[in-house]
Amino acid sequence: MAGSTYGNIFQITTWGESHGAALGVVVDGCPAGLALSEEDIQRFLDRRKPGQTRISTPRKESDEVEILSGVFDGRTTGTPISMMVRNTSQHSSDYSEIAGYYRPGHADYTFDAKYGFRDYRGGGRSSGRETVGRTAGGAVAAKLLGEFGISLTAYTKSIGPVQIDMDRFDREAILTTPTCMPDRDASALAESYLSDCMKACDSAGGVIECVIQGVPAGLGDPVFEKLDANLAKAVMSIGAVKAVEIGDGIEVSKRRGLDNNDSFRAKDGRISKSTNHSGGILGGISDGSDIVLRAHIKPTPSIFAPQKTVNKQGDNIEVSIKGRHDPVIVPRAVVVVESMAAVTVADALLLNAAARLDTLKKIYGR
Amino acid sequence: MAGSTYGNIFQITTWGESHGAALGVVVDGCPAGLALSEEDIQRFLDRRKPGQTRISTPRKESDEVEILSGVFDGRTTGTPISMMVRNTSQHSSDYSEIAGYYRPGHADYTFDAKYGFRDYRGGGRSSGRETVGRTAGGAVAAKLLGEFGISLTAYTKSIGPVQIDMDRFDREAILTTPTCMPDRDASALAESYLSDCMKACDSAGGVIECVIQGVPAGLGDPVFEKLDANLAKAVMSIGAVKAVEIGDGIEVSKRRGLDNNDSFRAKDGRISKSTNHSGGILGGISDGSDIVLRAHIKPTPSIFAPQKTVNKQGDNIEVSIKGRHDPVIVPRAVVVVESMAAVTVADALLLNAAARLDTLKKIYGR
Amino acid sequence: MAGSTYGNIFQITTWGESHGAALGVVVDGCPAGLALSEEDIQRFLDRRKPGQTRISTPRKESDEVEILSGVFDGRTTGTPISMMVRNTSQHSSDYSEIAGYYRPGHADYTFDAKYGFRDYRGGGRSSGRETVGRTAGGAVAAKLLGEFGISLTAYTKSIGPVQIDMDRFDREAILTTPTCMPDRDASALAESYLSDCMKACDSAGGVIECVIQGVPAGLGDPVFEKLDANLAKAVMSIGAVKAVEIGDGIEVSKRRGLDNNDSFRAKDGRISKSTNHSGGILGGISDGSDIVLRAHIKPTPSIFAPQKTVNKQGDNIEVSIKGRHDPVIVPRAVVVVESMAAVTVADALLLNAAARLDTLKKIYGR
Amino acid sequence: MAGSTYGNIFQITTWGESHGAALGVVVDGCPAGLALSEEDIQRFLDRRKPGQTRISTPRKESDEVEILSGVFDGRTTGTPISMMVRNTSQHSSDYSEIAGYYRPGHADYTFDAKYGFRDYRGGGRSSGRETVGRTAGGAVAAKLLGEFGISLTAYTKSIGPVQIDMDRFDREAILTTPTCMPDRDASALAESYLSDCMKACDSAGGVIECVIQGVPAGLGDPVFEKLDANLAKAVMSIGAVKAVEIGDGIEVSKRRGLDNNDSFRAKDGRISKSTNHSGGILGGISDGSDIVLRAHIKPTPSIFAPQKTVNKQGDNIEVSIKGRHDPVIVPRAVVVVESMAAVTVADALLLNAAARLDTLKKIYGR
Repeated sequence: MAGSTYGNIFQITTWGESHGAALGVVVDGCPAGLALSEEDIQRFLDRRKPGQTRISTPRKESDEVEILSGVFDGRTTGTPISMMVRNTSQHSSDYSEIAGYYRPGHADYTFDAKYGFRDYRGGGRSSGRETVGRTAGGAVAAKLLGEFGISLTAYTKSIGPVQIDMDRFDREAILTTPTCMPDRDASALAESYLSDCMKACDSAGGVIECVIQGVPAGLGDPVFEKLDANLAKAVMSIGAVKAVEIGDGIEVSKRRGLDNNDSFRAKDGRISKSTNHSGGILGGISDGSDIVLRAHIKPTPSIFAPQKTVNKQGDNIEVSIKGRHDPVIVPRAVVVVESMAAVTVADALLLNAAARLDTLKKIYGR
Repeated sequence: MAGSTYGNIFQITTWGESHGAALGVVVDGCPAGLALSEEDIQRFLDRRKPGQTRISTPRKESDEVEILSGVFDGRTTGTPISMMVRNTSQHSSDYSEIAGYYRPGHADYTFDAKYGFRDYRGGGRSSGRETVGRTAGGAVAAKLLGEFGISLTAYTKSIGPVQIDMDRFDREAILTTPTCMPDRDASALAESYLSDCMKACDSAGGVIECVIQGVPAGLGDPVFEKLDANLAKAVMSIGAVKAVEIGDGIEVSKRRGLDNNDSFRAKDGRISKSTNHSGGILGGISDGSDIVLRAHIKPTPSIFAPQKTVNKQGDNIEVSIKGRHDPVIVPRAVVVVESMAAVTVADALLLNAAARLDTLKKIYGR
Repeated sequence: MAGSTYGNIFQITTWGESHGAALGVVVDGCPAGLALSEEDIQRFLDRRKPGQTRISTPRKESDEVEILSGVFDGRTTGTPISMMVRNTSQHSSDYSEIAGYYRPGHADYTFDAKYGFRDYRGGGRSSGRETVGRTAGGAVAAKLLGEFGISLTAYTKSIGPVQIDMDRFDREAILTTPTCMPDRDASALAESYLSDCMKACDSAGGVIECVIQGVPAGLGDPVFEKLDANLAKAVMSIGAVKAVEIGDGIEVSKRRGLDNNDSFRAKDGRISKSTNHSGGILGGISDGSDIVLRAHIKPTPSIFAPQKTVNKQGDNIEVSIKGRHDPVIVPRAVVVVESMAAVTVADALLLNAAARLDTLKKIYGR
Repeated sequence: MAGSTYGNIFQITTWGESHGAALGVVVDGCPAGLALSEEDIQRFLDRRKPGQTRISTPRKESDEVEILSGVFDGRTTGTPISMMVRNTSQHSSDYSEIAGYYRPGHADYTFDAKYGFRDYRGGGRSSGRETVGRTAGGAVAAKLLGEFGISLTAYTKSIGPVQIDMDRFDREAILTTPTCMPDRDASALAESYLSDCMKACDSAGGVIECVIQGVPAGLGDPVFEKLDANLAKAVMSIGAVKAVEIGDGIEVSKRRGLDNNDSFRAKDGRISKSTNHSGGILGGISDGSDIVLRAHIKPTPSIFAPQKTVNKQGDNIEVSIKGRHDPVIVPRAVVVVESMAAVTVADALLLNAAARLDTLKKIYGR
């Protein structure tokens, strides 16, 4: 209840700090019988690895995952899947300086206010490295969803002022551009923009979009456990996210009802919508269309430019933050958004199994 | 786990349908000793009552609350506070027609897809009337927060294209304008815009902003139970909300770090921020500044204009929705946003009581 | 989290005090499509009604239930089922005296120690009347279990020194004897024993046994959510229960392994056990045999005989408790044990729906 | 929700199988600022280590714990404490045989019935080795409780027919006798009894008692989260426990009220009870007296004597279980009972911090 567990049935419990011995996650509630290997996990983790391009921190984090439990003969057993990544490239000395003051835009001050002290090395528990556990858990969830024909695609939609053009959408580019943009032209522009930011000792923000395809109608609950409510929580719980949109999001507040409502259409016995302003969710429950969400991410708070702040003695000081940090968080957060969305949908899928008497009877052969 | 309970320690469990016998909420986990009366609750409920102005449904809902348990000698006892509102003005016959088809923009189709059938009268559980329980629960949370110097102010920020001017901010107008706008000029313009919508048999959306003052630094947890993550879930779980922003929200994605970071400043031994782009939360934990959030609300899906849809037999049809409905949801949702925020902050306040050994020892006199 | 909610998926939230306006329960997570009426609930509530026989309190509690939500056209809708019983025969004046002192064996002292004050009327929230909500919830759970061929039978096994003889087991007698014993001879003896207790201004304890038939193998989880662990919690959470046994219970501690192990036997492709020392649960998971549990219940703490205690001023005093109370709790608690067991098994049944990939695929038609 | 997490605020999530790579636990919700070292944990783990005496399995399990997160500068940080023990002495080959049949008294059959297959090596997740995680978590809870003057003492009360004599109670003997009995004479007799069992290729059961001292009045909630209900679940969730008693337990069902009620007495402004039949809990809330509970444990199901059972092909067969197993589970389970009780009380202690407005105000300085 200190909030390191997420999910109702498909649950992930993450642990670990930036510069501790290791980071990890326990996935509980994954159904038995799912084929799962360390490669499945590593593929996800590799997508958030730093040190891969000019626009990410030069830190090398090998982030090799070890599955410690819950898989036997290549399949999940229904018991907790414990996964761990050892920290190997942590230079704690880089951070001894920040022990004494509060970095603007970081959790240093609030952590001290809450707990009285903190593991200041690299941000401790509030570091982006905490998402290692989320990503490993998301890999399991995504594998599970695949068994039900559900797939997720997250990508960078914008960095600073540079937006992708959906007409140039190139899925392969997500994994091959340094920006994780599915538009190579936009990506080149964004890289150039980031170079400017770095020259100015500054950083940039951006937007991540995630599309979830193949979700059957009926997932999510009608009141507090609405699928969109849980997606909002899941995504807002990623550090640096400051806004979440579902479907047309902020645009709907300016629309009229007739323009915003999606008409239902029937064809060959299947019901679908002629448009998808709703983003695949109506009344908190999936409607069978693609689920679409966006996360708005603030610029990396760690910048080299001098900033005003306060030290632990309560003096007003000026600081320039040393160390190795990304000029933009967005590309490395793409797989984290995808992971949190995957865990959320997997949880809704499992919870929905108990929603109706008639489907339950199928399970119990009655 | 069908999602009718919200909160970890301060928990609300809502129940009831639009046209059932009654609606209500059970508040569990409210500390013992809080002065509480039916007037405290009624004041909140009255703010979401319809039939009060030209721009809300002419339905009369008296919505008188009865406290059934948990209060003795005028104070909460620490046991569940059960509150109920009888439904009195429900015309079920109005809705018999919609039993047979799926209203665009509503949960009719997804509810059927999930559960196999639905209480179609007035939207059943997916009706806006479900928020009666949330609002009663929010009234208790707000009263509790008041004991700790925490206050909430929610208001309409925009309706369609009409935005308030913060320079004309008039708190009293929130409770006295039909739009719940704290700007009488904007409110008049919005009323005029809504008249146009109604003439066109159409509806409008808008934005609600909520400011929470007096929150001490330290509330919220650093990973999944981040205060902003829970606020996002709380607000997104209100029907018709399609986006949630914290602080500067979507704007931050276009900013640079130096502009977006809030500097800390110390004065007379107190630490504060020179700006509040963060919206009062850093790393998921309150930073002592005002917490600011916005909910983007879609136009009322029930409109009189003809729309295309599908009936239960799978035929493509055209419908004009009869009945009584608001041309805009926003004004009546203001108190609901405030209520959900109040419950979320109250929960974080209680949960935080167990965060540190030194403060715990104060409780147990050690 | 003040502990008024029980269950993971099938959840009951009870509320209400002995002498408040009403008592009730919200059942959330019951699958949609279950036929349910007020008669189903009333039948359970009538089994715990007092004033029916010489050996129960002469209080008249009509305890008529009203279903306020969650049922439409005679079937559950998947949304919360709210049920309420108005308090009608409460004589608060009977209890004004006990406001000032702590009744031995009651929660008066601990409630004050915890919350600082209490609703002293009739025990407030700690009254046996709190079980009205549990029983209404249990009636729904039992109805649901019936759809899967699962039935529960609880009965009085002993009162004071009087035990039933299983060779004279008469199911019908459970509902017709004042003791709820399935053995009319033992019941007559127990009544005579209770008459002696009453003459002595004293009270008696006893044992309730519950047998659950038709549970398929596979319900319950292997670690903390073991089916027996949850049954133990469910039953121990009923006031006055001081011990819970599963299967052969306390006897097993004196046995040797060879005598205590149940051999598996196969016949016609079905696996069963040749004995049932385990009480239907192995490793926390149902094994397909009858589940058997026993609750040991203390004598009613309210007695007319003079007792030593302390008043709120801290004086040592002697008291004789006035009012109307049962000389034995056991017969009225039989349906409460059955109800809590039903809720626990129903919850395990629903949770198990998500345990395996292959069965999940049946639900989603893959 | 597959049940690997226990606790509401102080939460433990265990993972790992008997013959997997490692076992461990994540403790979330431990307050920040508690001094904690690996020695604190190791001391607890060493108490459940096998291979130490003639009456436990000759398996050598070094069970060295590594703290992977949540502790910085020797104190807990308020973030999850991840602890791991590598499996080092696992001979999987010993168990290949049992892959094909269902051991009587074990979870083999129920696990297969639930999940479709199982990690059969050494019992997999249902092995006693799962309690490594519980014990490490319990060590943290016990350390925390020590800060509040709360201490726990668990010991073997009986093995088979041999009971301890409370008049010879010798606390030191708990840690030094192979039986964990606080009575050296009884321990010698029990050892002799166990030798007989082993000669007969058989095993024995027994009883563990746990006394918790220093618990302030007021912990536990009045309805479902009763302190005794949670203790019952915690203890019953330990494999092989078949009954749980609180205070005088099963004895109370035969008593009369006057004999069973504990009188309150006031002296020097403090209220206490003249007797402690209640075992320290009234109405689910601690009453300030010692909390006393007993767990009844079945004989080790793994025995060398031939037994009838069924193989996976559905044939009736006879088996003699090979391998290394304890003739009695009880001594090694003593620290597990103590651990589960510690976690339960720690959780109640933290949860109670939010029970009253007046104490909450102390925390927030109002």
